[in-house]
Amino acid sequence: MKQIEGGITAPKGFEAAGVEAGIKYENRKDMALIYSQKPCVAAGVFTSNRVKAAPVKWDMQIVEHSPYAQAVVVNTGIANAGTGAQGMQICTDTAKEAAKVLNIPQDAVLIGSTGVIGAQLDQGKINAGIAKLAQKKEASKAAGTDASIAIMTTDTVNKELAVEVEIAGVIVTLGAMSKGSGMIHPNMCTRLGYVTTDAVIDHDTLTELLKNDVVDTYNMISVDGDTSTNDTLLVLANGMAGNDPIRKGTKEYEAFREALHYINETQAKRLAADGEGAMALIETTVVHAAGKEDARTLAKSVICSSLTKAAVYGHDSNWGRILCALGYAGAEFDPEHCAIYYGKKASDAIFEGDFADGMLIYEDGTGAPYSEEEATKLLSEPEVRIWVDLKMGEDYATAWGCDLTYDYVKINADYRS
Amino acid sequence: MKQIEGGITAPKGFEAAGVEAGIKYENRKDMALIYSQKPCVAAGVFTSNRVKAAPVKWDMQIVEHSPYAQAVVVNTGIANAGTGAQGMQICTDTAKEAAKVLNIPQDAVLIGSTGVIGAQLDQGKINAGIAKLAQKKEASKAAGTDASIAIMTTDTVNKELAVEVEIAGVIVTLGAMSKGSGMIHPNMCTRLGYVTTDAVIDHDTLTELLKNDVVDTYNMISVDGDTSTNDTLLVLANGMAGNDPIRKGTKEYEAFREALHYINETQAKRLAADGEGAMALIETTVVHAAGKEDARTLAKSVICSSLTKAAVYGHDSNWGRILCALGYAGAEFDPEHCAIYYGKKASDAIFEGDFADGMLIYEDGTGAPYSEEEATKLLSEPEVRIWVDLKMGEDYATAWGCDLTYDYVKINADYRS
Repeated sequence: MKQIEGGITAPKGFEAAGVEAGIKYENRKDMALIYSQKPCVAAGVFTSNRVKAAPVKWDMQIVEHSPYAQAVVVNTGIANAGTGAQGMQICTDTAKEAAKVLNIPQDAVLIGSTGVIGAQLDQGKINAGIAKLAQKKEASKAAGTDASIAIMTTDTVNKELAVEVEIAGVIVTLGAMSKGSGMIHPNMCTRLGYVTTDAVIDHDTLTELLKNDVVDTYNMISVDGDTSTNDTLLVLANGMAGNDPIRKGTKEYEAFREALHYINETQAKRLAADGEGAMALIETTVVHAAGKEDARTLAKSVICSSLTKAAVYGHDSNWGRILCALGYAGAEFDPEHCAIYYGKKASDAIFEGDFADGMLIYEDGTGAPYSEEEATKLLSEPEVRIWVDLKMGEDYATAWGCDLTYDYVKINADYRS
Repeated sequence: MKQIEGGITAPKGFEAAGVEAGIKYENRKDMALIYSQKPCVAAGVFTSNRVKAAPVKWDMQIVEHSPYAQAVVVNTGIANAGTGAQGMQICTDTAKEAAKVLNIPQDAVLIGSTGVIGAQLDQGKINAGIAKLAQKKEASKAAGTDASIAIMTTDTVNKELAVEVEIAGVIVTLGAMSKGSGMIHPNMCTRLGYVTTDAVIDHDTLTELLKNDVVDTYNMISVDGDTSTNDTLLVLANGMAGNDPIRKGTKEYEAFREALHYINETQAKRLAADGEGAMALIETTVVHAAGKEDARTLAKSVICSSLTKAAVYGHDSNWGRILCALGYAGAEFDPEHCAIYYGKKASDAIFEGDFADGMLIYEDGTGAPYSEEEATKLLSEPEVRIWVDLKMGEDYATAWGCDLTYDYVKINADYRS
């Protein structure tokens, strides 16, 4: 597997566009299109929030019941959530319009929305945007970037990615774009994420792969603990690479799984690092846990702790807050028999019990002697690593979050204006 | 029942003091004493955090195994958590010293600590503080206030309270002091809370009363979602009112329960309103829920939502965030069949389904037409009320939180310095 340039248009047969449709703001791209020259197998995971945006309900139907998908129409500015029957009608009309313009079936159109909850979309603006998108769509790298930029809201960084992987002698490509900065605490999946691939793979295999992979990628990030109404992650596979179909239990399956995991983990980390107002990515890895679920719960508790997040923002080595967050997580661990480190650099050795790349700050009930100066330096890096050694079993997990800053409050005290 | 002036020294036979002991900072009261002239029945509830501060472990032993308690020694500045065997030794030595100076048994001394986690206390300073406390203790109202002020950390408001209640012709008095501003998300109980009473009541009755009451009082508040290592709520009953013993199932029990509930609810609300950096109390009441636990979960989810908290700070009627927080709470409700209001004033009528004192903002799937100007005004009050009508059953619950402000971040980015 190797990372290549580009994003959603990197795989064969995918076109894209991003245009200004004036949905909520002027002078910014706010509608995006992903279009495949051939019909796609589509798999999706969606928010677990009981309040599901209209486009989430729409996509759930398409992914489950349509024979195939061929386009995704996304708008930013308005989330089309909390919009009742009118919101669902907008999805139907949007799909109808896109189907007509792109000359594909209505039930091959997926829809994504992100932005403020409760406001209604203007169908006229959406239709005008679709016309522009259809006219501009192309398979170029630049077109993929246009689409990826068009789905950003409070994001400060464009998040696209592509990898190539060899599947039984055939090069298969995967591309992705994701957005999300606030209201990030995915449960099943994040705000909006799209993965394109030219792999040949059937619906059930792709769906199972995706559902299993989000558990340790998108579901392990949090910006603010708020699980969005619009969380959507879609994978579209158009089969144009021409590989033998990917089947479970083969080494080809494993290669594809690894590529998809790399895409999802990288994009999830980027969302956390670009959390609203964030200055630093906080990566917490828990090793030697008694169970996998314990490891996940503990790692996530640390990156969700407001006090830990604020301490990282202040570059303040107030490790009691990390210990406290482990304590209230509700998972198995013994505070009198565990260790906490700051990681000086990324390390795979910690999974083998070698913490030489870390600085010990707490062990077996009390603080360790360490240099506050060095700790402050580690907490001032753009990536802050916290390692927890539970000294119990063999399970591990990593979670990603970000610091809590003045800007998070500023952005969210006045998001609508 | 009526509220009276004063706090922990209001009930008969209770003395108190607050002194400067120089535990962490100079020129502020940082040690407090509660002393009863007669032995007390003691009941307590403590943090559910697996990381329990040494004084929490100490108090759990005393409350469960000692025949009686007669004094509480509290320090601020250092939490004595994450301090291992040395931290436990400090509790033993503190109790020994207080017992000697006050001439009571060592196992009648309760201990409380609050402040930074991980630092060790200086026994010399503690002992000097105890000597001062013993010398200054008295039954005056001012002495109670001194103690209440001494336990404050980032609190901006002194939180004491006293009520009188008639129990079978005898006046029984309850007094209280509480502190807590950050790391507030009690689970079993809050940071530090102390209630004194001269009622005659046995240990088991008092303990059961207390445990049941925290569920809808202290356990329904949150400032930042972080459950402290030091949460402690103690009730000391010295029996000096001379009432007939309070027994379960009597109307005297009910009168005492109501008084204790008033104390706990009032103190819990004060903690939420004085949350770190807070400008406003957010009170969320969920009515007509299918079950009590659903009502609690939904109310708490709203007051814990970072995005809702930031919107209140910005006086921004972004009700989608309230709906979103209800949606991810994981409790029973139908977003297509419920209503959300801002309360214009406190109202008991909402329990009867009368929302005339509220402003409807969302109903049955979509936003309601309302005046943004009036909404902004309601969201600018020091108490912001959110009412949720689930239109399902008869259960209800209220939770209290506060807005998320620049000052919360500021206070916690640099708490230790």
